[in-house]
Amino acid sequence: MTQNGEPIVNATLVNPPSRAHQIHSFLLRNELRAWIAWRPDELLMLSGYFPFWGASLLIYFADQYPVLFVPQIEPRDHIPAGLRVQEYPWGDLKCADPYSVLVSAIANELVKAKVPPEQAGMNVSSSRTSLPIQAAEQIPMPESFSGLLSALTAKPNSVSRAGFADLYLRKTPEEIDAIRLANRVANVGLRAFFENLQPGIAEAEVAAAVESAIYREIGSDGIFHSRGWAMVQSGANSACAGRFNRSTGRRLENGDLVLIELATCVNGYWSDLTRTAAVGSPNTTVEPILAIATAAQQSAIDVIAPGVSAGYIDALARDKIAAEGLSSYFTHHTGHHVGFRYHDPGFLILPGESAVLEPGMVITIEPGVYVPERGGGARIEDNVLVTESGHEVLSRIEGAPA
Amino acid sequence: MTQNGEPIVNATLVNPPSRAHQIHSFLLRNELRAWIAWRPDELLMLSGYFPFWGASLLIYFADQYPVLFVPQIEPRDHIPAGLRVQEYPWGDLKCADPYSVLVSAIANELVKAKVPPEQAGMNVSSSRTSLPIQAAEQIPMPESFSGLLSALTAKPNSVSRAGFADLYLRKTPEEIDAIRLANRVANVGLRAFFENLQPGIAEAEVAAAVESAIYREIGSDGIFHSRGWAMVQSGANSACAGRFNRSTGRRLENGDLVLIELATCVNGYWSDLTRTAAVGSPNTTVEPILAIATAAQQSAIDVIAPGVSAGYIDALARDKIAAEGLSSYFTHHTGHHVGFRYHDPGFLILPGESAVLEPGMVITIEPGVYVPERGGGARIEDNVLVTESGHEVLSRIEGAPA
Repeated sequence: MTQNGEPIVNATLVNPPSRAHQIHSFLLRNELRAWIAWRPDELLMLSGYFPFWGASLLIYFADQYPVLFVPQIEPRDHIPAGLRVQEYPWGDLKCADPYSVLVSAIANELVKAKVPPEQAGMNVSSSRTSLPIQAAEQIPMPESFSGLLSALTAKPNSVSRAGFADLYLRKTPEEIDAIRLANRVANVGLRAFFENLQPGIAEAEVAAAVESAIYREIGSDGIFHSRGWAMVQSGANSACAGRFNRSTGRRLENGDLVLIELATCVNGYWSDLTRTAAVGSPNTTVEPILAIATAAQQSAIDVIAPGVSAGYIDALARDKIAAEGLSSYFTHHTGHHVGFRYHDPGFLILPGESAVLEPGMVITIEPGVYVPERGGGARIEDNVLVTESGHEVLSRIEGAPA
Repeated sequence: MTQNGEPIVNATLVNPPSRAHQIHSFLLRNELRAWIAWRPDELLMLSGYFPFWGASLLIYFADQYPVLFVPQIEPRDHIPAGLRVQEYPWGDLKCADPYSVLVSAIANELVKAKVPPEQAGMNVSSSRTSLPIQAAEQIPMPESFSGLLSALTAKPNSVSRAGFADLYLRKTPEEIDAIRLANRVANVGLRAFFENLQPGIAEAEVAAAVESAIYREIGSDGIFHSRGWAMVQSGANSACAGRFNRSTGRRLENGDLVLIELATCVNGYWSDLTRTAAVGSPNTTVEPILAIATAAQQSAIDVIAPGVSAGYIDALARDKIAAEGLSSYFTHHTGHHVGFRYHDPGFLILPGESAVLEPGMVITIEPGVYVPERGGGARIEDNVLVTESGHEVLSRIEGAPA
């Protein structure tokens, strides 16, 4: 644990478990020799491939190279090495049922690898998946496809759902670098947020500028996909930000608190940030709210280190807010895992949560205070890496506005 | 059918079937007295409500007002009249399993209405759903929830999937107005596209400007939700636009064809458009491609009217391209239904498709020609309403650039 609350920057992980090691341990524990995946976040975690259409499918074998099935119309320029790629006729005008072709191909691969159904598993749920690059419509595999696949896997829905979800928790150094990049790009968006904070501009106009700045990063630094979802709430609207985040046509006014919730996906990896700022001259009714949220967040971040429980971190933030008599205005969790999705699975930073932090975890810390009676709310959210000896705030970029 | 290819503008529908009439016919045909829905596009169609979180659920009863279950943290300001609204503790920090609370509440409503399982139906598939307002993460109901619900419905997955999907086909006058609005907003984005077409600007920069212009429409004209997904491809990249659409960092060059694929969602209703334009001075290698795509699209649009088959429309576009010796460069369908989603279910405008158009249908017409050997591709896509006597191109706005 850090001694003086100073974040330890760029601390390295000592012998972090590799992704392959984590996956193999999972398969071994569950007596599985193959895992079938199609959710964009699962594909990314298991193979490094982030799908374009969301209709790609991977067989991860315990003892041979993975097979990646991609639609005939999938772009091919970002498929990592080490995968055996097969195409199937999704997008082919002449094929009436590409999924049956895919199922036959999967069955064939499993037979060749001598993997019987009882040694194959998959997660059929599409709950809270990451969105693929083509993000305007989610194309999960159709229900009929789940039925076809279940004949090949005796363990659909995961024999050990918790065990599979645990794979999201400890990021590898390469994945941390990718999440760091997502946070760097998110900060480009945040710069646009701070630059646009002026009375008279509409919430939606501020949010549009932020998303635009993020999209424009495509093409720089190996970034092939960059998309932000920015939601800006000002004045009385910011007092709703603990329940939902959306932009309206309301124009910023002098003295407003303005809150931005910003989800950013870069090459498939996610950042989840919030900033709150005051517009124009200080407003003594709402500005203390911002100071309290800021202090609560920092006190929670300060203690982040391996072995610290989620409940303890939550309590530090919650107590700070309670000490100001505002506990009933902080109604949500203090944080969650992040990186493969806007919200990764795993334990939350919640009251009473006994799960402890481990090196390689990346969590959000996002306490908030939302006071309708005072016409404002505030939340500060950062993405924090647990290092061997403390933590690093991945989302605080040198020289970035705060 | 139109006689001279001129679109008939603002033609009205004669006695169009109301949404309630269509739904009741569907229930009656399937001996159902209740339909349970949670997909954002289903909710919108059945109740006019477009969910924020995507975790709302509706029971549509054959003989009483619908019940809408919303998360405790759902915004309430856009819920239409005529729904009985109940909240459930999704988002409540103190509730470990909000879905079990929801299932009990649903069971209770079905019992009160004396609807036994064999008279209740639902569609559990999450394939190709519309994204809710919070569009950065799809939150379909969890798999466990489908299991819980199936005890209440003897007809999950729909006894008559085709029958339910048919509900998407004929839009009501109110829905058409909403799709018209989405197309008006999309044209604001297209204006930004044409204004940004200059050598030196990156594809992603053009796309960012388009999305930004669309987002900024929030707050005007009763628009509470407006989001665009713009994908811009230039030069050689435009030749890939028949397989996938994405923006890269490539900078536009003099003589490029530049194609934009643009999905727009306004208040839950969708527009799906494509434009292609040449940058700078004419390039005689690729410009004929654009002319051919444009002519093919217009010849297909010209014949749109009730009773015309999808296959006939497709053939007109396809023959025009084949006459130029380019048939192998048009590899996808000519169109699809649109409005409740980026791609509504229903028959496609495909070779040999015998389904015929009816008044109230809204379809895309989007032939394309993509010629890698010539370094360019072109597609023009519009959204066309079938009227009683012909058609109206909803996406061609007076004064808009083309």
